[in-house]
Amino acid sequence: MAHPAGPRHAEVYRHADTAGVRPATTDELDRLYPKVWPRNTYRAPDGVVRIAGVDVRDLAKEYGTPLFVVDEADFKSRCAEYAEAFEDPALVHYAAKAFLCIEVAKWVAERGLSLDVCSGGELAIALRAGFPPERIAMHGNNKSVDELRAAVQAGVGTIVLDSFHEIARLQAIASEAGVVQDVLVRATVGVEAHTHEFIATAHEDQKFGFSLQAGDAAEAVRRVLAADALRLRGLHSHIGSQIFDTDGFEVAARRVVGLMAELRKEHGDEILEQLELIDLGGGFGVAYTDRDNPPPAAQMVTQLRTIVERECQYAGLPVPRIACEPGRAIAAPGTVTLYEVGTIKDVVIGDNQTRRYVSVDGGMSDNIRTALYDAVYDCRLVSRSSGDGVDGEAEAVLCRVVGKHCESGDIVVRDCWLPDNLAPGDLVAVAATGAYCYSMASSYNRLPRPAVVAVRNGSARLLLRRETVDDMLRLEAQP
Amino acid sequence: MAHPAGPRHAEVYRHADTAGVRPATTDELDRLYPKVWPRNTYRAPDGVVRIAGVDVRDLAKEYGTPLFVVDEADFKSRCAEYAEAFEDPALVHYAAKAFLCIEVAKWVAERGLSLDVCSGGELAIALRAGFPPERIAMHGNNKSVDELRAAVQAGVGTIVLDSFHEIARLQAIASEAGVVQDVLVRATVGVEAHTHEFIATAHEDQKFGFSLQAGDAAEAVRRVLAADALRLRGLHSHIGSQIFDTDGFEVAARRVVGLMAELRKEHGDEILEQLELIDLGGGFGVAYTDRDNPPPAAQMVTQLRTIVERECQYAGLPVPRIACEPGRAIAAPGTVTLYEVGTIKDVVIGDNQTRRYVSVDGGMSDNIRTALYDAVYDCRLVSRSSGDGVDGEAEAVLCRVVGKHCESGDIVVRDCWLPDNLAPGDLVAVAATGAYCYSMASSYNRLPRPAVVAVRNGSARLLLRRETVDDMLRLEAQP
Repeated sequence: MAHPAGPRHAEVYRHADTAGVRPATTDELDRLYPKVWPRNTYRAPDGVVRIAGVDVRDLAKEYGTPLFVVDEADFKSRCAEYAEAFEDPALVHYAAKAFLCIEVAKWVAERGLSLDVCSGGELAIALRAGFPPERIAMHGNNKSVDELRAAVQAGVGTIVLDSFHEIARLQAIASEAGVVQDVLVRATVGVEAHTHEFIATAHEDQKFGFSLQAGDAAEAVRRVLAADALRLRGLHSHIGSQIFDTDGFEVAARRVVGLMAELRKEHGDEILEQLELIDLGGGFGVAYTDRDNPPPAAQMVTQLRTIVERECQYAGLPVPRIACEPGRAIAAPGTVTLYEVGTIKDVVIGDNQTRRYVSVDGGMSDNIRTALYDAVYDCRLVSRSSGDGVDGEAEAVLCRVVGKHCESGDIVVRDCWLPDNLAPGDLVAVAATGAYCYSMASSYNRLPRPAVVAVRNGSARLLLRRETVDDMLRLEAQP
Repeated sequence: MAHPAGPRHAEVYRHADTAGVRPATTDELDRLYPKVWPRNTYRAPDGVVRIAGVDVRDLAKEYGTPLFVVDEADFKSRCAEYAEAFEDPALVHYAAKAFLCIEVAKWVAERGLSLDVCSGGELAIALRAGFPPERIAMHGNNKSVDELRAAVQAGVGTIVLDSFHEIARLQAIASEAGVVQDVLVRATVGVEAHTHEFIATAHEDQKFGFSLQAGDAAEAVRRVLAADALRLRGLHSHIGSQIFDTDGFEVAARRVVGLMAELRKEHGDEILEQLELIDLGGGFGVAYTDRDNPPPAAQMVTQLRTIVERECQYAGLPVPRIACEPGRAIAAPGTVTLYEVGTIKDVVIGDNQTRRYVSVDGGMSDNIRTALYDAVYDCRLVSRSSGDGVDGEAEAVLCRVVGKHCESGDIVVRDCWLPDNLAPGDLVAVAATGAYCYSMASSYNRLPRPAVVAVRNGSARLLLRRETVDDMLRLEAQP
C-alpha cells in the first residue's frame, strides 16, 4: 500500500489548494460550467445529470462504473469548428494519441479531417476504421522500420521526418516499394509554450525534430532533396500543449518562415514548391476548470494564419498553406468519467483541519494525469444513490477524490467542493477527461480498463467494452 | 507530439544531473553492479551480457524488444531470504501489485509465502494460479462489495479493514455467507518514511486506514469486536516505500504497540488473543543505482522484530507475531528491460553543451516511473548490433534514454553514461524494472505491452506474451 518514493515526493503531497472559491450556494455547488462540461450536459430539475439526453443513472446501471461517456455531438462539433476555420478540412489533423478507437476514427474521417498517428498500432486502428490513408500523417521520434514500411505500404499521405537516421531508412523503404513518399521536416525552433507562458531560446532540450539553430533542419532538407524516393512538402513545428494564446506560435512562425527564407537562398525559388505547407502542430488548450479560458478554435487558428501571412509578406515569400494538429482540443471537452463513490473518510490533517477523502471505483489506472502532471479537474455530484436527484440544500465541503489503487498518490481530483451529504453509492463525474485518460489507461492493480460509451440524442452505445479478468489472463503463457 | 502541460512542467525539465560520476574507463562504463543487476547477470569476455546463462541477443531475436527479462532464481532467492528471516514464511506477504502473473504467484506459493492482493483482478489471478486462499490477504481503501464477496467466498485468510463503511459491509457479507472472516485493522500512525528520511506527525493526510490519533483505530476495533462475523487478528501499519533504515518503523511500531496497550486497558487482557499479529507493511528499499545502499532483508527484518519486542516488553505486553509485505524488494532487482536503440540525436542545449538523446523502442508505456516519480535507473549497453560484443575502448557520453511516445516527457532514464560509439540496433538494458513497470504498463500511443520472459539455467520461457494489434482491437464494440 505504498506510494513509491521519489525526489518529487514532498512536492506531490504539499500543494496549494486548487479547488477554487468555495461555492456559496447549492446552485453554485451543482453548477456545470458550459465551457468545462460536454455541450449537451444538463442537470434536470430533479438534480440528476443527463448527457445528450441520457440519464447518468441509466448509464451506470447498464454499463457499470467507472465509465467514460462521450458526448458524440460535442466531439463532432469541435471537429467541424476546426474544419470551418480552414479552406480545406484536411489541413486539420486530429491527433489520435489523445483518444482513438474505430468509431472515433470514423467520425474524424467523415468530417474530412486528417489524422495524425504515431505508431503502427494507431495506424492499424485507423486503417481498420477505413480512414483514407492519404489523409493520415505519421509522427514519431523513433518510428521502427516495420512502422515506416507499414505506413508506406498503406499509402499514408505524409511522414513527418524526425531524425537523420529516419531520412535514410525511409528513402530505402520507399525506394524498395517503388513509391515517392511525401514528407515534412520537423524543425525544433526553441520555443516552448504552455497556457499563458512561453519561453524562447536558441535551442531545445528534447528528443523531437531537427534543430533550426544548429543547422540540422537545413541539413535535413538537403538530404530529403537528395533522396529520390522522398518528396518534401513543407515544414513542421510543435511548441507545447495546453496553450491559451498565440504569442509562442508567433515566435515559432517567425523562425519557421526564417528557415524558409534561408532555404530559398540556398536552393533557389524552385524549393518554394516543396515548402507549400507549414504545420504548426497542436497544443490548443481546453478548460479543465472554470478558471481556464481558452480562446475559441476559429479565433486561435485565424490568428495563426494572420501571423504566418504577415511573416511571409515581410520575408517576401509566398504564403504557404497552414495545417494544425488539435487532439486534446477536440477530444477532451466532450467526455466525462462517471464514478461511483465507495467510501468517504474525514482525515484530520492538523491545525484543526480535516480533509474529506472521497474514494471512487477507478483511479490512476483510468486517469494518470493528476499524478503525472498535477492536472486539475472539475468534479461534481451527478446523482444520488437513493435514486433521487441532488435535491435539498447542502454545504460545500472541500474534498479530495481518490481512486481505489494501493498507492497514496492515486488521486483523481486533488481539491474540489462536494456537498456535505455526499454518500457511498452516489455518482460523481469528472469533466474533460476525453484526452490522455483512456489512451494512457493501465490495468494497474489489475483493475479492468473502463468501458467507453457514446451518447447522442437520448441514447447510448458502446464504443469500447469494459475489460474483464479473462482479457487480462489472455496474455498469460500458461493460463 | 505534445508533452501535456501542468504546473510541474518547469521542474520536470530542469533537473540536477542524476548520472553519477563519469566512468573513467571502458571497464567502468560496462560494469554491472551486483546490487543493481539480477544476481545471475554476467558480461562475458565478448562483451555481451547473459542473464541466467541466456544471451541477450537470443532473447531479443526470439521474443523481440522491448522485453522484460526475469531472473527466476533471483526472484526466488529473495522470497527465500525473507522467508528465512521469519519463523513462519507465511508471515511474509508478497505484495502482488508490484508484479503478478500466474507463474509468479506459483513461485511465491511454493516458497510458503503469503500474498497480498488489492483488487478482484489480483485475487482472480492468484486463485487461477492455485494460490492457497488461506495465505491471501486483501487490501484496499475502497474494495467493492463484489470484491469483498469474492474474497469471502474464496476463503482468503485475512481482509485488512480500511474504513468504517467496510466494517459494516464485510460484516453483512460474511454473515450472509455464514462464515467468520479474519481481519486486521489498518491504523495510520502519522509516520511517512522514504529512503533515509521519515516524518512523524500526529496525523496523516492520506486515504488509507484508521487514524490512531483521532481515535478512529480504537473505534474500528470496537466495531469489529461487536461484529459477530468478523474475527480480529491484529493491527496493520504501512509507513512508506523505498525505505533504507528502520528509524521510521521504530516510531510506527512504538505507536502501534501504544494502541495495543490502550486496547488492553479498554477491553481487558482477553483482547490480546485477537491482537496476536502486527503487520508492519512493506516499503523495503532496493538499489536502483550504485548510489543506493539498502540493507539486506534479514537485517532489516531482524531489526523490526527487535524493535517490536522491546516496545512490547516496555509496555508489559506479550510479543505478537510480526508480518511484513515486501513487493518491490522481491520483484524489482531480478528483472531488466531490454530495449533496442532506434535513433540517436545530439541536441545542443546551450552553453556549448550537448545532450545525446538515445531513443529506444519502448518508453513511458512500459516504465511510467521515471515520468511519474522522477525515478532514477541504471542503463547499460548489453550487446552491439554488429553481433559482436561491447569490445574496444569507448568514451563515456552523458545520455538521456527516451522512448518512442509522442510526448517530450517520455523519458526512460534521465541521465546515464553510455559509450560514444553506441549505434542504432544496439541492445541496452535498464536494471531493476521488476516492480511497478509491467504492472503499471499502458498501451499509450497504442504500443503493445511487452512480453515478459523468465530465464533460468541457460533457458528462457514466456510468462506473458507480447500484446498484438488484435488484442488492442478486442475491446472495440464494432471491430
